Amino acid sequence: MSGNKAVAYKEPGVVEIIDTPYPSFELKAGPGVNPVNVGRKVPHGVIVRTVSTNICGSDQHMVRGRTTAPAGLVLGHEITGEVIETGPDVEFITVGDIVSVPFNISCGRCRNCKERKTGICLNVNPDRPGSAYGYVDMGGWVGGQAEYVLVPYADWNLLRFPDRDQALEKIMDLTMLSDILPTGFHGAVTAGVGVGSTVYVAGAGPVGLAAAASAQLLGAAVVIVGDLNEDRLAQARSFGCETVNVANGDPADQIEQILGVREVDSGIDAVGFEARGHGHGAQEAPATVLNSLMDLTTAGGSVGIPGLYVTGDPGAADEAAKKGSLSLSLGTGWAKSLSFATGQCPVMKYNRQLMMAILHDRIHIAKAVNATAISLEDAPRGYAEFDAGAATKYVLDPNGYLSSN
Amino acid sequence: MSGNKAVAYKEPGVVEIIDTPYPSFELKAGPGVNPVNVGRKVPHGVIVRTVSTNICGSDQHMVRGRTTAPAGLVLGHEITGEVIETGPDVEFITVGDIVSVPFNISCGRCRNCKERKTGICLNVNPDRPGSAYGYVDMGGWVGGQAEYVLVPYADWNLLRFPDRDQALEKIMDLTMLSDILPTGFHGAVTAGVGVGSTVYVAGAGPVGLAAAASAQLLGAAVVIVGDLNEDRLAQARSFGCETVNVANGDPADQIEQILGVREVDSGIDAVGFEARGHGHGAQEAPATVLNSLMDLTTAGGSVGIPGLYVTGDPGAADEAAKKGSLSLSLGTGWAKSLSFATGQCPVMKYNRQLMMAILHDRIHIAKAVNATAISLEDAPRGYAEFDAGAATKYVLDPNGYLSSN
Amino acid sequence: MSGNKAVAYKEPGVVEIIDTPYPSFELKAGPGVNPVNVGRKVPHGVIVRTVSTNICGSDQHMVRGRTTAPAGLVLGHEITGEVIETGPDVEFITVGDIVSVPFNISCGRCRNCKERKTGICLNVNPDRPGSAYGYVDMGGWVGGQAEYVLVPYADWNLLRFPDRDQALEKIMDLTMLSDILPTGFHGAVTAGVGVGSTVYVAGAGPVGLAAAASAQLLGAAVVIVGDLNEDRLAQARSFGCETVNVANGDPADQIEQILGVREVDSGIDAVGFEARGHGHGAQEAPATVLNSLMDLTTAGGSVGIPGLYVTGDPGAADEAAKKGSLSLSLGTGWAKSLSFATGQCPVMKYNRQLMMAILHDRIHIAKAVNATAISLEDAPRGYAEFDAGAATKYVLDPNGYLSSN
Amino acid sequence: MSGNKAVAYKEPGVVEIIDTPYPSFELKAGPGVNPVNVGRKVPHGVIVRTVSTNICGSDQHMVRGRTTAPAGLVLGHEITGEVIETGPDVEFITVGDIVSVPFNISCGRCRNCKERKTGICLNVNPDRPGSAYGYVDMGGWVGGQAEYVLVPYADWNLLRFPDRDQALEKIMDLTMLSDILPTGFHGAVTAGVGVGSTVYVAGAGPVGLAAAASAQLLGAAVVIVGDLNEDRLAQARSFGCETVNVANGDPADQIEQILGVREVDSGIDAVGFEARGHGHGAQEAPATVLNSLMDLTTAGGSVGIPGLYVTGDPGAADEAAKKGSLSLSLGTGWAKSLSFATGQCPVMKYNRQLMMAILHDRIHIAKAVNATAISLEDAPRGYAEFDAGAATKYVLDPNGYLSSN
Repeated sequence: MSGNKAVAYKEPGVVEIIDTPYPSFELKAGPGVNPVNVGRKVPHGVIVRTVSTNICGSDQHMVRGRTTAPAGLVLGHEITGEVIETGPDVEFITVGDIVSVPFNISCGRCRNCKERKTGICLNVNPDRPGSAYGYVDMGGWVGGQAEYVLVPYADWNLLRFPDRDQALEKIMDLTMLSDILPTGFHGAVTAGVGVGSTVYVAGAGPVGLAAAASAQLLGAAVVIVGDLNEDRLAQARSFGCETVNVANGDPADQIEQILGVREVDSGIDAVGFEARGHGHGAQEAPATVLNSLMDLTTAGGSVGIPGLYVTGDPGAADEAAKKGSLSLSLGTGWAKSLSFATGQCPVMKYNRQLMMAILHDRIHIAKAVNATAISLEDAPRGYAEFDAGAATKYVLDPNGYLSSN
Repeated sequence: MSGNKAVAYKEPGVVEIIDTPYPSFELKAGPGVNPVNVGRKVPHGVIVRTVSTNICGSDQHMVRGRTTAPAGLVLGHEITGEVIETGPDVEFITVGDIVSVPFNISCGRCRNCKERKTGICLNVNPDRPGSAYGYVDMGGWVGGQAEYVLVPYADWNLLRFPDRDQALEKIMDLTMLSDILPTGFHGAVTAGVGVGSTVYVAGAGPVGLAAAASAQLLGAAVVIVGDLNEDRLAQARSFGCETVNVANGDPADQIEQILGVREVDSGIDAVGFEARGHGHGAQEAPATVLNSLMDLTTAGGSVGIPGLYVTGDPGAADEAAKKGSLSLSLGTGWAKSLSFATGQCPVMKYNRQLMMAILHDRIHIAKAVNATAISLEDAPRGYAEFDAGAATKYVLDPNGYLSSN
Repeated sequence: MSGNKAVAYKEPGVVEIIDTPYPSFELKAGPGVNPVNVGRKVPHGVIVRTVSTNICGSDQHMVRGRTTAPAGLVLGHEITGEVIETGPDVEFITVGDIVSVPFNISCGRCRNCKERKTGICLNVNPDRPGSAYGYVDMGGWVGGQAEYVLVPYADWNLLRFPDRDQALEKIMDLTMLSDILPTGFHGAVTAGVGVGSTVYVAGAGPVGLAAAASAQLLGAAVVIVGDLNEDRLAQARSFGCETVNVANGDPADQIEQILGVREVDSGIDAVGFEARGHGHGAQEAPATVLNSLMDLTTAGGSVGIPGLYVTGDPGAADEAAKKGSLSLSLGTGWAKSLSFATGQCPVMKYNRQLMMAILHDRIHIAKAVNATAISLEDAPRGYAEFDAGAATKYVLDPNGYLSSN
Repeated sequence: MSGNKAVAYKEPGVVEIIDTPYPSFELKAGPGVNPVNVGRKVPHGVIVRTVSTNICGSDQHMVRGRTTAPAGLVLGHEITGEVIETGPDVEFITVGDIVSVPFNISCGRCRNCKERKTGICLNVNPDRPGSAYGYVDMGGWVGGQAEYVLVPYADWNLLRFPDRDQALEKIMDLTMLSDILPTGFHGAVTAGVGVGSTVYVAGAGPVGLAAAASAQLLGAAVVIVGDLNEDRLAQARSFGCETVNVANGDPADQIEQILGVREVDSGIDAVGFEARGHGHGAQEAPATVLNSLMDLTTAGGSVGIPGLYVTGDPGAADEAAKKGSLSLSLGTGWAKSLSFATGQCPVMKYNRQLMMAILHDRIHIAKAVNATAISLEDAPRGYAEFDAGAATKYVLDPNGYLSSN
């Protein structure tokens, strides 16, 4: 095990397959590794051989050059793997376990972790609360779009699947537990979705589709998904959602056609800061989605915001957005007594229960997001097609677990 | 009972005492009454003789000419009274009851009322969910800064005090149950304040002070109040709060002096849309408070926003604010996984329990906000002094209940 | 409209069809009417023509002679109807509305109603908090297994269906909103059922089946239903539940066969005080179900108890049970940190959202409980067959709405 | 550091001071150590020098011979200490830290710990979920009424005080964070205590007094404490509680004298299985407290049960109680829609926020429970006096931290 093929960011628009060192139980210097973290010992970690690792929309922010990610940064925070080595402090995870790795790295020992807020762990990222694998400004934990990856605090972080064969059989669904399924579910939960809710999900990318499927699992009566991309909307319809093409005018009019009223109980922003305006030929307009959701969500409702908003966006359309400021019609929101929930999903709060739902066939998330396995070498193609709007969730297969399935 | 002296809005900066008709069990046409509501029968209502009625900061928005309130609008939504007539459909409220009137009018029969969301009742305001007495665009229910006032849906809306003598003895505290105490409490609750919390309240007006006292009642460890007005800050210190004069620079620095850290668990915006910037000579800057609270609230925390934000503000400093849009650093909020709660306080959700706290001496809200009784005729002076920044909550005494006490 | 055919309790084991007066807007003296309620004016009420009215397991307690219900008591608290007259105080319900009547009568004006605890309204039953139609010791509100019935506080109590035709088309599902669907749902909610839960429901009668279907709607991974009655267990399997015949020995062994572990996350008691022991030829043993649930529910779990337990049961097997006392292994419950929730379901807390789930085909409760329409005249047969263990929910059709459908 | 003086159980009614080995990072065989745990490595542990360690009412169950505790069992689960050695896997706790040790031992790595249910950790006690130091059937972790004690999973379990000097100054308050303050607080929280609540606490021992003080901290309007012991009731009155001597007849009558009504919003059982009946000369009657609380708690209320109920009690008054079964009037509870919460308090859920409340003088728990420091050698006297009903919480001082203070 002398090497470790991985997907790395090269320059705006370009990712490449590179050779990197096989991981050890220490965080070594490298592109994007915070100097404070260099040399950090990880006896509580395990090394996993990657079973599956997905391309995420938030990876695209880096690849499009909308962040300060350095060349050579190994990408990938959606990881499922087989444990092949355990550090000396690992007690309950053992070699051979098939495990889901929550994308947010957390220590299990700080105040926030003890309060289940694993998306803002205080001990893993020297810059700010919260961390993730293979992501700029997140401490420098090496990404998992690779053959092997180091997972720290393994007893705390890992979700073990109860049965290896069952896990490999349902792997295309289970692979979504590392990020998008909990993230979409968190969006739905924080939007107050429950039995009988009417729901509008802005965005039919993988997170939006996961939010829609989650809303159904939570008992929503009607789930409406809005986007500009007809292929993605078709994907939403494939599992029973209603859809709205926001290029065709005011979503409220279209919602009224579906529901008889112009508002929904719960609104979910699965788009984030790279939002575009509504109508044909719409330009980037970062506040569009949130302002629209204030319109579309009924008085007393909640807006869940799993879509990413950033503090600095050098490629933004205007000066305010470059600093992460948006012009929001808070007056409307206040008059309607709306609530808003933001931030990374704390995956660990939801992944066990969502695993149960997958294992017992209560949700078919792979089908909902059109999960498609490709080889690690094909990652550049996956990135390009996804960026072009393919209604596909690309799942990399670095070690042949998926192809042999 | 042929007349009914009342405080009415005349023109920007001016209120006057006028003679109005004694109320009947029907909503008659008049300044600010929504045409749809004219002639509405109110057999479920009672007429109360006003025991106390307070001047509120949100009245000031109208008086300053920041709204479309018409001349002649009778003001006042903070009402405590004695029931003197009951409509034919009233079953459990009886003549002689001393009652607190929640400022938000609600029907007790719509979906939102059944869900305890009485701030956004669907049946009382033809324009939008939610209503209040004596307020522009709220349906036209006549204000209570008057000798007598009609209260609709009385069995549902009214909170009866258990004992008349006890009520009149504690009336200067109990009068705060109609609005500012529940409103401040709601701010604290929605900011996640609990036992051991550290809390920052932006604004030391009556709502801010009520939020601070509420945070203490909820068990907060440290409550810090920020304002530009030293008299109001002194008022906050009088009941054990720490204070920050935002004219003296970055509140984070001052919070660090107090707590040893630069952030608090919970942030409360008790200022609203007429916010000013920090530092000496600061101008109106409507997004200042919210952006500051995103800075000052710790990752994973919540921001409660009882301060009013409006959908239209003709007097605003810039075009965006005139439409109720603010430039918010949502990127910062998202990176910290913050939540935000807005809107009118649903008074009925809290007033009974807060009454119990007052009656059993667990909170002394009159003292905290420096409640001061003045005559109805003195209302213009009260408005003027309050507008000038007096650290005083003015309580009008239209019928001599307070002076004879 | 001179008369009103109705189902009445005659003597243990016997119900009969009798002629009763057409209702007026006043509660008149009659069998089981509390003297304090006699003459009570009901201007806030409506008279509904019954569309459907179901026989409930809790009616059986009276019919079996296990209560002090007097002869002549008109039965029936599961009522769906068409409004044909409205009292003078009714404002938002109109003639022609098709409405679901929550079985628990509540005023919408007391502390408990304001807190959504409509199962323990303080103003409708002079004996104790809480009331229901056609039930012993519940104040004397006349039952709804009749052609016509008076519904008090109609604006508050009634759930209006949005569309008459749609309502009549789905009436066999919607009729379950008056009691068993919310009751089963409440059992599931108070048992902590959520996405991914494993659930054990004790009892496969209509409430048990409704709890099971509710658990599925809430996203449960696995729902296991236990009973002694194979027909009812077959009914549970018909919509995807696993089953356990408790006559075949320890349920924990059978649960282990299904789940691989001997405990579930959530336990629901849908049996109540007439429980029988486990194993062949089991006798009545009122504590059996609860003690079994303490065994079967995992540490930290919750037990929802929608099954009825009474304060006096003259027909009980032993002296303690006659007074409503049970020998419970609380030591086991405590060691496992279990929680227990009891009491009538507050229907209004859930019926709107469950209506949405029915209207949008998210739950098929009629099929789950094998709802079967019979004529009012056939009610005695329905009572007898249900008491004999038929896996059927009988729905009476006093006015031909169901047969003409 | 060759030895370690400790308090051990000798025989019913007798504890003694013995010499035991200084702890190592391995769980060695000894009295009460579960064979499965013998030899367990504890590299994640720390050794603390005991600063304070309190005698608990639950220790008395063992000392009275009501359990199967073996002779030689080292007692003590209420531990505050100074860290003097750290195992190799400890990352964030350092030598010199002054720390509170939650009485329930938990791993921070199992499903229950991740869900904050640290009272039922799955990995520390081979017999059942949940563990504690120095307690029978809890896995065999050595007790802390000793000079030194081993704390496993130290990064997870320990609460570090922010400042050493401040901690030692407030140590008599902070020492209550290891058990009784969170336990009483948990009782209040699970009983639904909030701002304005009326509360009845059964039992004026240290846990009852802590529950009462916690209820005040949570904003309760009136807290009533009941007991048979006048000294303990006087202690309750010393910090503003109302009291009821249950020897003087029906508590409901006495509550009515205080409140004007016969019921409270929230009931707390701080007595547990060794309860006595009400009235003069009452005998042990294990169901008395719970049945009384069902009477005294208002419809819709909750009963928190921090008082310990056991699965086996060889010394019980009757056969059922010997197996942990109690004759409970569940019919009454059900008719009133009561909820019940049982089990060990998950200390970690509350201790940080309660520490904040202590450090900022929001609660004075040492005074409330009459905390009194005695030497380790005086432990036998402390046990005897506490057992005899002294209104005192004994705090042992094995290393002179308290006497030098």
